[in-house]
Amino acid sequence: MKSYGQYCGLARAAELVGERWSLVILRDLLVGPKRFNELRQGIPGIPSNLLTSRLRDFEDASVVERVLDGRNVVYRLSEYGHGLEPIVVGLGRWGARQMDVPRENEVPTDNSLAAALLTARTDEKVQAFSVEVTAGPATAHADVSATAVSVATGPFPDADLRLGGSSLRRLLADGDIDAAISSGAVTAKGPATLLKEFTRAFSTPLDEVAHNLP
Amino acid sequence: MKSYGQYCGLARAAELVGERWSLVILRDLLVGPKRFNELRQGIPGIPSNLLTSRLRDFEDASVVERVLDGRNVVYRLSEYGHGLEPIVVGLGRWGARQMDVPRENEVPTDNSLAAALLTARTDEKVQAFSVEVTAGPATAHADVSATAVSVATGPFPDADLRLGGSSLRRLLADGDIDAAISSGAVTAKGPATLLKEFTRAFSTPLDEVAHNLP
Repeated sequence: MKSYGQYCGLARAAELVGERWSLVILRDLLVGPKRFNELRQGIPGIPSNLLTSRLRDFEDASVVERVLDGRNVVYRLSEYGHGLEPIVVGLGRWGARQMDVPRENEVPTDNSLAAALLTARTDEKVQAFSVEVTAGPATAHADVSATAVSVATGPFPDADLRLGGSSLRRLLADGDIDAAISSGAVTAKGPATLLKEFTRAFSTPLDEVAHNLP
Repeated sequence: MKSYGQYCGLARAAELVGERWSLVILRDLLVGPKRFNELRQGIPGIPSNLLTSRLRDFEDASVVERVLDGRNVVYRLSEYGHGLEPIVVGLGRWGARQMDVPRENEVPTDNSLAAALLTARTDEKVQAFSVEVTAGPATAHADVSATAVSVATGPFPDADLRLGGSSLRRLLADGDIDAAISSGAVTAKGPATLLKEFTRAFSTPLDEVAHNLP
């Protein structure tokens, strides 16, 4: 970790979160604690030695803790690290404002999809339900309570609602579930009432100018 | 700008703000629009070609605009770039939680001090006043209104309140203005009533464990 030489809270924070891959690692740890190999395999293209180095910096700064989970060592956010949740969520919403269709070679990961559900949760009070979402190679699921959400990676076949398809981003932007279903852009399995609840519980604004940007 | 290859709002944001020096540049632009040389001179140690490259990436992503200010070209945050304000402020507060005394060779800059005032503004409704703050080589000032604050770099000799000294960080953490003044750790010029208003208007929590950390 290299210092910016500035006696400044933002500069100190930037030493930790403002290095290449740092925010992506922190996003995945926000979704849940993980073993080293789970982290590495969940982030295509991350160099193993860079991941090691970032985790060491996070540990030294008390952002991440190494703990035993059964016989495995897992990395998890500390109380201080969890203080980054509103920042990671806010940055996710900010980046998503300009993100319409995927760029070439861009794919969602299980963790990015789970984080997208966390980021998209509105303040709306809704009926509790569980939902599984599939987008390309990625699957995640969420337990929605009246005013909150908890998310995890991977499938959840018993979910009350299962959604898939190529246009989930648009659905989160415009909330038009009827159009999404009838055009075939989104596939759904579950009660129609829960489809409406989904669009009330999850929303991620998309700037007008971002439509059709690469 | 290098892509993370992830179809994810956070990854897209990280391509912009998660590169070395990016957050420090964005902090200084949040304080106010600046010419290239003002930016460069305000950030000790930043390589000129790196600053050029970051500004180009910010422009390409519509985060920063280049506009004419008289005969000078200045860089300023776009409407989209201003969307980063709560994130930069939140990160500043998060970093400051673990920042007690300066590390060796660490100094505040005019812009970091101005940003610290922006970051520290509480939700308290206070009497309007202006304040100039000096910390080591850095000076900044703020116009405090009932519920908000605007900040700028440099001196403001006509300020209603002028504060200086080596322990402003502690004062922002504990709000104990009497102790700060009587010990000589903070010097003040202005009405005693405004000193109290200052401690109500500005606060930046410091974690217990951070006390006396290097």
